Amino acid sequence: MSGAVVLHSGGPTPVINASLLGVVEEARRHAGITALHGARHGIGGVLREDFVDLFSIDPKTLDSVARAPSSALGTSRDEVREEDLERIFSVLAKRAVRYLFYTGGNGSMSAASRIERHAKDRGYELRVVGIPKTIDNDLAGTDHTPGYATAARFFACAVRDIGADNRSLPGQVEFIEVLGRNAGWLVAATALARHDPDDAPHLIYFPEARLTLEQLLDDVDRVYQRLGRCVAAVCEGQLDENGQPFGADVRSGSGGTLAMNVAHRLAILVMEKLKLRARSEKPGLLARSGAAYPCELDWNEARLCGEAAVRAAIEGASGVMIGLVREAGALYAVRTTLVPLEEAARQKLYPPEWRNAAGNDVRPEFVEYAAPLVGAIPGYAAL
Amino acid sequence: MSGAVVLHSGGPTPVINASLLGVVEEARRHAGITALHGARHGIGGVLREDFVDLFSIDPKTLDSVARAPSSALGTSRDEVREEDLERIFSVLAKRAVRYLFYTGGNGSMSAASRIERHAKDRGYELRVVGIPKTIDNDLAGTDHTPGYATAARFFACAVRDIGADNRSLPGQVEFIEVLGRNAGWLVAATALARHDPDDAPHLIYFPEARLTLEQLLDDVDRVYQRLGRCVAAVCEGQLDENGQPFGADVRSGSGGTLAMNVAHRLAILVMEKLKLRARSEKPGLLARSGAAYPCELDWNEARLCGEAAVRAAIEGASGVMIGLVREAGALYAVRTTLVPLEEAARQKLYPPEWRNAAGNDVRPEFVEYAAPLVGAIPGYAAL
Repeated sequence: MSGAVVLHSGGPTPVINASLLGVVEEARRHAGITALHGARHGIGGVLREDFVDLFSIDPKTLDSVARAPSSALGTSRDEVREEDLERIFSVLAKRAVRYLFYTGGNGSMSAASRIERHAKDRGYELRVVGIPKTIDNDLAGTDHTPGYATAARFFACAVRDIGADNRSLPGQVEFIEVLGRNAGWLVAATALARHDPDDAPHLIYFPEARLTLEQLLDDVDRVYQRLGRCVAAVCEGQLDENGQPFGADVRSGSGGTLAMNVAHRLAILVMEKLKLRARSEKPGLLARSGAAYPCELDWNEARLCGEAAVRAAIEGASGVMIGLVREAGALYAVRTTLVPLEEAARQKLYPPEWRNAAGNDVRPEFVEYAAPLVGAIPGYAAL
Repeated sequence: MSGAVVLHSGGPTPVINASLLGVVEEARRHAGITALHGARHGIGGVLREDFVDLFSIDPKTLDSVARAPSSALGTSRDEVREEDLERIFSVLAKRAVRYLFYTGGNGSMSAASRIERHAKDRGYELRVVGIPKTIDNDLAGTDHTPGYATAARFFACAVRDIGADNRSLPGQVEFIEVLGRNAGWLVAATALARHDPDDAPHLIYFPEARLTLEQLLDDVDRVYQRLGRCVAAVCEGQLDENGQPFGADVRSGSGGTLAMNVAHRLAILVMEKLKLRARSEKPGLLARSGAAYPCELDWNEARLCGEAAVRAAIEGASGVMIGLVREAGALYAVRTTLVPLEEAARQKLYPPEWRNAAGNDVRPEFVEYAAPLVGAIPGYAAL
């Protein structure tokens, strides 16, 4: 008689439900897990004892849920507070929970690690295994994170489509605001939209480096003079030379900055300073849904991570997150590994050596890295 | 020996290339049309004599092009200037052009009408037939316009996806900025995302009516108090009670207002006045591409309009645009009709009687109108 809890924490991803499927399917294979409790809306679901009995869900429903974007369990940004630990362990003990599967990003892995240490301290037998989940691709110890490839595919397709519009109706500068506060992995992926050198995106900026207004205007002007059009991809978290959001018309709430509009502000700056037509698009959370451009590889890997988490826990692992290791060789293949939770909690930024010297494009090493994950982005026929 | 010219004018749509395919295929069937010149980038292509010989394009390429979003010929916002008419007719005469197929929206139909009148005045034999094209659905004399259904489908799917995100991670207000400066047809279509009464969108605002800040805050607060979340769809052209864009951080260029950010400003107002988490998404021109969520019916009807334009011209019509008439009966069916260009040039706004009394939702009549065009929007499985 031992139970397991699985929960989702932080922003949802397009494939977090595939990881859930992996957990349920693998848990069903092990007699040692007699109940699988899905906590609704993260750690709060544990505190409220708001659980879904996942073994009672029929396989057909589960398969449909696994294909749906967003978190079917519900997720939350709730922190694990020191004063809640007592209550958490009382709920776990009541259900004889010996396995905790914590699905999330950096902050979640840090929270999972705290719970694991606390269990050890109080002598409560609990195996805590993290399941990686973030579109931002910024977890240390793994080649990439489930969720990244779908969101990356979304933004690459979005830039291809905005680029086709910009080419057919030129005379305009387009800014596309890409998700990512600190890490440039997603904005870099827009490079995969290109089939010809003159294809969008013409400029890519990385939040790891500050961007001067002077460089931005020089870059845009140069592209526009050459092509009569320009598409630039910027991260929502891009800062100017003073370390401030461009234009500063942003607002923060609990849990971080919410109202971003860097692309809009850059469009206005280009209109005012360069006297060019400009506008901006901000698909935002549509990329986190990913329904527009599904990515089968990402879905499969997310499911794999869910399965691997259960197997690792059954085999005795704890205090680790499932990581993905890319096998050597020309053909893309991955296997899973175990990453200490505290390592996974560290943010992995986009490597500076994968930016070009001008700081406005990726280098080929990134395309080699990302193309197998994201898959081919089909181009459009032209007359 | 008589030639034909086809051109695209105004913003591209997801299916404008399907109309082009229809023109080419039908023109090939008529011995009376010996050459078909595709003008690159609208009327400017005529002035520059920059033409694509469309009869020389192999059918396979043409089929691929017809499936691509944006305008494969290229389009433009160039006006037909009085002083250019002489040059236009000299170019047409040089190629013995007797047919002009003008693909566009209100402004384009007005321009086509001027060219047609000028031809009559100077005794130049020319049949001018308009092909409707606008995602805004605001042309008079037609049940709907090719391009609308795909863009409507995009926004309905986008609201479904943002709604799923908002449900899985509640505690937040989401504004989605929908294309449309003056006409509410697209923002209305987000209503098609709903499967249950509590599904997004919870609020829909129409640019035909001004929106007071007081109503907006009351509406959002009421939804949020009930559900703990809120998704509101607003048009980029939504004005406040004083007839001003909310927050006024917008800029105009040649050809209209470019840098819009109404959803961002509304998110900030909600954060400041209601002390709620809020953010905004603005997929913008992605909807005009429509590649994310294709709509086969729209594509077929766009092609049909291209074919019908050629047939009408061959049969002697001129000074008309192809319109779509919905047949009576339970099953959706359309036929084409001829609409005087000057009628088509008039803007058809969203009917006030299809807004609810509170001015924050559609009425069922709209859903009956739009659902057959947009098709079913599949929902997501839940636990």
